[in-house]
Amino acid sequence: MKTIEQNFAVPFRYGVYFTEDLFSVQNTLFTEVLQKDGATKPRKLLFVIDSGVANAHPELPEQIHAFAATHADTFELAADVLILPGGEEVKNDPEHLQMVLSAINKYGVCRHSYLVAIGGGAVLDLAGFAAAIAHRGIRHIRIPTTVLSQNDSGVGVKNSMNAFGKKNFLGTFAPPFAVINDSNFLLTLEDRDWRAGISEAVKVALIKDISFYQSIKEDAARLAARDMEAMQRLIYRCAELHVEHIGGLDPFELGSSRPLDFGHWSAHKLEQLSQYSLRHGEAVAIGIALDVVYSRLSGMITEAEQDDVLALLQELGFSLYAPELAQREANGQLAVVQGLREFREHLGGELTIMLLRHLGQGEEVHHIDEALVQEAISLLQKMHQPQPLAQV
Amino acid sequence: MKTIEQNFAVPFRYGVYFTEDLFSVQNTLFTEVLQKDGATKPRKLLFVIDSGVANAHPELPEQIHAFAATHADTFELAADVLILPGGEEVKNDPEHLQMVLSAINKYGVCRHSYLVAIGGGAVLDLAGFAAAIAHRGIRHIRIPTTVLSQNDSGVGVKNSMNAFGKKNFLGTFAPPFAVINDSNFLLTLEDRDWRAGISEAVKVALIKDISFYQSIKEDAARLAARDMEAMQRLIYRCAELHVEHIGGLDPFELGSSRPLDFGHWSAHKLEQLSQYSLRHGEAVAIGIALDVVYSRLSGMITEAEQDDVLALLQELGFSLYAPELAQREANGQLAVVQGLREFREHLGGELTIMLLRHLGQGEEVHHIDEALVQEAISLLQKMHQPQPLAQV
Ligand SMILES: NC(=O)c1ccc[n+]([C@@H]2O[C@H](COP(=O)([O-])OP(=O)(O)OC[C@H]3O[C@@H](n4cnc5c(N)ncnc54)[C@H](O)[C@@H]3O)[C@@H](O)[C@H]2O)c1
Ligand SMILES: NC(=O)c1ccc[n+]([C@@H]2O[C@H](COP(=O)([O-])OP(=O)(O)OC[C@H]3O[C@@H](n4cnc5c(N)ncnc54)[C@H](O)[C@@H]3O)[C@@H](O)[C@H]2O)c1
Ligand SMILES: [Zn+2]
Ligand SMILES: [Zn+2]
Repeated sequence: MKTIEQNFAVPFRYGVYFTEDLFSVQNTLFTEVLQKDGATKPRKLLFVIDSGVANAHPELPEQIHAFAATHADTFELAADVLILPGGEEVKNDPEHLQMVLSAINKYGVCRHSYLVAIGGGAVLDLAGFAAAIAHRGIRHIRIPTTVLSQNDSGVGVKNSMNAFGKKNFLGTFAPPFAVINDSNFLLTLEDRDWRAGISEAVKVALIKDISFYQSIKEDAARLAARDMEAMQRLIYRCAELHVEHIGGLDPFELGSSRPLDFGHWSAHKLEQLSQYSLRHGEAVAIGIALDVVYSRLSGMITEAEQDDVLALLQELGFSLYAPELAQREANGQLAVVQGLREFREHLGGELTIMLLRHLGQGEEVHHIDEALVQEAISLLQKMHQPQPLAQV
Repeated sequence: MKTIEQNFAVPFRYGVYFTEDLFSVQNTLFTEVLQKDGATKPRKLLFVIDSGVANAHPELPEQIHAFAATHADTFELAADVLILPGGEEVKNDPEHLQMVLSAINKYGVCRHSYLVAIGGGAVLDLAGFAAAIAHRGIRHIRIPTTVLSQNDSGVGVKNSMNAFGKKNFLGTFAPPFAVINDSNFLLTLEDRDWRAGISEAVKVALIKDISFYQSIKEDAARLAARDMEAMQRLIYRCAELHVEHIGGLDPFELGSSRPLDFGHWSAHKLEQLSQYSLRHGEAVAIGIALDVVYSRLSGMITEAEQDDVLALLQELGFSLYAPELAQREANGQLAVVQGLREFREHLGGELTIMLLRHLGQGEEVHHIDEALVQEAISLLQKMHQPQPLAQV
């Protein structure tokens, strides 16, 4: 019998919106976004909020209730807001997934209803995963509240949780209905969370956009001093570069190439080794430093280029070294090199690591030399020791 | 700041292949299918097998090992085959999902490796769900072994498991890498499983293809007598209609219309009320009977058309009634009508139910009249009582 061939393409479309004070009664963005679905009746919304956000913005649940009451013709709340623990912990314990799924079930949140998540990258990852698998996918609006989630994790198409001690072992590719970046949330971030996400901007600038890299350098002192305008510029361009990249060749990562993972092969392992006491963005800054030194040691970039990047990361306030970088397994192998194997297993296919050919231009390699990794780590360790950086 | 617009389409492509005796050493189909990935090194495969299949084909695990040994240049087994309980039970207990995920983790099955599932619709749904969420999606090959899974569930893009007492509460849309229908598996089916899947062919013929409906009528006696050629014809055309439909307007069911759910709104509830002692296909036959009588009572089709369908279902050996159809909730409402609400919640949006305008032509309605449902149920009950049908 003849083979039956299936062949189709699924279109996805969403906006990343920028605003301030989203739930103030005169702000119309939220209802405008909802109305894009064309529904004629009020939609049902279930809100989940990061506990870190809820603590820093104790008025938020009230404000959302008041906002909903004012816009009862557009939407109604399925239930009171659900608070989830902020930070990596929410992705480690399946209990949190269960909480969100139970609420979706209990309050009759259907495929045409919305799960709205307000929080950092970790809460968004977990909530997005719940939204993706409940009823085979309910609509999901992300309201990212950290720099990292506003300029990177929240604007993309991935969600996840951790399992078997492995970061992001579970998850799907599931584009959101919309992403809304409210810069007011950034005001209450701890310094380390204000800073952490900047590393993702340095990352994408280094591999794709030299003029963005230059503008980060110009703004570096302002960024370190929590200048909001400089941060908004950085977030906008970083989000734009991520959105463009994802909308490009391989949104669901079916191939082996992952350019946006520059600086990430070691970062994922460092996060895990530190038991998530290192933030993702902090680990990425170290990962960038490692890959920049490695790129220089293997002759891909000059020493001047290397030093330029390391100086920028330091001016931004990043630590370029963590003791986990030098940690060894029982067999004597560097734990980060072991992590390279896990990274490869997660992705599958040929090992493909992004390094730098120039500042602003990445280049993929398919082999990593362990001795050079060791040398790069020793150099970072040495730079770190004589003048210890401010501890975060 | 200007809104950033994301906009892309993800292409999906897979084949539904037909064969006999897939793992006999001279059959080259399986390795040909794998080679479509273009990999240059042997792929890693993890097999999961339905216990019903393993019991009926005790030689199968051995055969797969021997087959793998012969084709070591194309693929290797990640581990021994994993046996999962066959039937709905596998979708009810999250323990089974955990088993598959653990094996994926333990044996290093990556995004470019394969989870190959051999079994009925239930095992395929569960294994497909595991494949879809591990590493955000590993490659998945389905080898359906029941009529229903070869002509409907296995050729589509959905996977699932049950939760909160609700059928398919969890799941995703995730196209397989390939589907391979081996007709030899059908030889060992119990009569009820041979029969059950035929209802899905009647369903799709009734809403889309009158000439397919006529050919099912012509083959009815042969199908009831387990004629393999008649069954192969039926499976091929039914699979083809499902593949065409899915590849059409809305593969991931983002809208409200679900034409292929003709006869299904009550079927899902009947399965649940019977504690899954009714097979999906058996419940669908009853659901079709109900919707056909309802279509006649509401003046959409003639009595002659109604009788034609009911007679065909009976000739095929289906029962058109189950006591669960008349079951009432504590509040006196028919349990199937309550199920309509759950069905709607699962799908979201406007209630949209497919009924019949003619044999071979469906028509969607947005309202169901409870009194007419009651009348249709009473009629089916009456038909059932005087001459009890052969019990399955
Ligand atoms: N899905 C993706 O594509 C993707 C990409 C990159 C990173 N990530 C994930 O994102 C996570 C990291 O996200 P993150 O850097 O946003 O950190 P985070 O989510 O861990 O949040 C850090 C801390 O900030 C708190 N917080 C959040 N918003 C706040 C606010 N406005 N005011 C005060 N406190 C606030 C949180 O409660 C938490 O304690 C990691 O799990 C990482 O794996 C996902
Ligand atoms: N994903 C979808 O799009 C979709 C569509 C329709 C139905 N489904 C699901 O499919 C499931 C029903 O599937 P099904 O009808 O194949 O039944 P099933 O998977 O429940 O299998 C029925 C029985 O047959 C046994 N069996 C399977 N193959 C056999 C073989 N070759 N020889 C002997 N015994 C064998 C099984 O062990 C089981 O006991 C339901 O869970 C339903 O929800 C899914
Ligand atoms: Zn990152
Ligand atoms: Zn069905």
